[in-house]
Amino acid sequence: MEKLHTLYYVLDLAGTFAFAISGAAAARKRNLDLFGICAIAFIVACGGGIIRDLCIGAIPPAGLTNWLYLGAALTATGLTVKFFPVVQRLTRPVLLFDAVGLSLFAVTGAEKALHYGHNGQVAVLLGITTAVGGGVVRDVMLNRVPVILEKEIYASAALLGALIVVVGTHQTWISYNFVTITALLVCFTFRLLGLYYHWNLPTPGETTSDQEKK
Amino acid sequence: MEKLHTLYYVLDLAGTFAFAISGAAAARKRNLDLFGICAIAFIVACGGGIIRDLCIGAIPPAGLTNWLYLGAALTATGLTVKFFPVVQRLTRPVLLFDAVGLSLFAVTGAEKALHYGHNGQVAVLLGITTAVGGGVVRDVMLNRVPVILEKEIYASAALLGALIVVVGTHQTWISYNFVTITALLVCFTFRLLGLYYHWNLPTPGETTSDQEKK
Amino acid sequence: MEKLHTLYYVLDLAGTFAFAISGAAAARKRNLDLFGICAIAFIVACGGGIIRDLCIGAIPPAGLTNWLYLGAALTATGLTVKFFPVVQRLTRPVLLFDAVGLSLFAVTGAEKALHYGHNGQVAVLLGITTAVGGGVVRDVMLNRVPVILEKEIYASAALLGALIVVVGTHQTWISYNFVTITALLVCFTFRLLGLYYHWNLPTPGETTSDQEKK
Repeated sequence: MEKLHTLYYVLDLAGTFAFAISGAAAARKRNLDLFGICAIAFIVACGGGIIRDLCIGAIPPAGLTNWLYLGAALTATGLTVKFFPVVQRLTRPVLLFDAVGLSLFAVTGAEKALHYGHNGQVAVLLGITTAVGGGVVRDVMLNRVPVILEKEIYASAALLGALIVVVGTHQTWISYNFVTITALLVCFTFRLLGLYYHWNLPTPGETTSDQEKK
Repeated sequence: MEKLHTLYYVLDLAGTFAFAISGAAAARKRNLDLFGICAIAFIVACGGGIIRDLCIGAIPPAGLTNWLYLGAALTATGLTVKFFPVVQRLTRPVLLFDAVGLSLFAVTGAEKALHYGHNGQVAVLLGITTAVGGGVVRDVMLNRVPVILEKEIYASAALLGALIVVVGTHQTWISYNFVTITALLVCFTFRLLGLYYHWNLPTPGETTSDQEKK
Repeated sequence: MEKLHTLYYVLDLAGTFAFAISGAAAARKRNLDLFGICAIAFIVACGGGIIRDLCIGAIPPAGLTNWLYLGAALTATGLTVKFFPVVQRLTRPVLLFDAVGLSLFAVTGAEKALHYGHNGQVAVLLGITTAVGGGVVRDVMLNRVPVILEKEIYASAALLGALIVVVGTHQTWISYNFVTITALLVCFTFRLLGLYYHWNLPTPGETTSDQEKK
């Protein structure tokens, strides 16, 4: 258990690192200055968790207190800025890391909400928020409609992961670790399959326009 | 009193429902996918209340805990997406429901802040926030300047409703229910009159440019 | 000490006043209506502090409870709207006041976080947030990329001020007032020098494009 806990922690930092890379790369493309890039990277990596912590009453938010998160985000930013041409070519590994971050944030987000004594709905909603909140704030700050609202299986994968945590935790006969690992794997696999096969959720607007054309 | 309380609750859900319709319709027009539409609808319906709850220390926010709000928002979204051409034609009923939601959120928002022991100013500011916060977040996410900042009597109606709650509650000789109902009616009527007669607050920028032209 | 405390308070209100002017002027330029102008001015003046208070658990946020902040913001708005042509010409004094506000908010923000028992990292991050948060929310609402993410020494000055507070407070042999005044002066001077000499942080995006051109 102790060992597994350390593993989560390491993976959580890996997720923070991956999210910070995607944030720094997006900010770098928009020609923000060094502070702007650091700020956006930190927000993508820790923003979702900070919103979750405010909502469950975990004051002050872990993203602000724990220097490891800030450290991971700033290291990722430094590397992204320094090796930007390389990062741009490494789209696939970055997406892979991002999927790791997504799964971890959805699962640990839901678990933290349950751990603070909140109900299943709060846990699911805040699991999704932890996973996608930072990216939404990034897109809002960079003045564009959040990409996760428009296409791709992204938040849906987070929803699935958080849901498994909540349902699994209610089944007391299933071990906690088994639930966590299942949730992580399902969320991660679902996201990767979605990327690979270009799965999208239905976009009611477009469907109708197509029908109108016929 | 018990009966009235149930009435408020039903009306509050009706407001949530109405706000979710307006959110879902706006998201649908922007061609968001199904998750995006649900997310925007939920944010319009519950976003203002969540900000209020964070500010008054009501953790976790009611919009996240109570499944009825989520249920109302998702039902409204489903119906909006399914019957979108109908919803587009029903502009007037939707605006009417929206005005109901506005009044209810302003009044219940102010009352909840007072109930948590905060002063009148907090109650007025958070009454307005409850009523307009969700719509502001929707507009920011859909990448446009919040419409309520530009024109129409909208936030002003919420201000009036919240103000009546605060002033009325200080007059202990007036019954609580009388204050609530008056506040609701005044806010609702004011908003409807504003819609009907196209009332706008002064826009200092335009006034000056007009004068400059003369 | 008592005297100094009153001084801080007065200066804090002066900062609120200055920030509200810059907010009202920006909103006025975008042709928002009277409510929109008041809302943006209030958000610029109190938004950063409200986010800080939510993160440190100071419920309800001071910006919502204390009528002096609201009063200062609304007075500044009224004057800005009334004397808009004058305000437009007074760019330098407004920038000066804004720098006063920046220093005060960074320093008092960091001190409040420490006072609530949080660690140095929280204090630095929230010092910056207090100083720049309102401006970021303003830019997001007015639908543009926050200017502080793109150029100028602004957040960096706030970082410096907050850092001096945190480091200085750990050195128990230095008096509290000395630390505060030093932090204020350094932050203020740094900001003014940055304005005067047009200092900018490096913008990695542009640097690379320049190099590519060569």
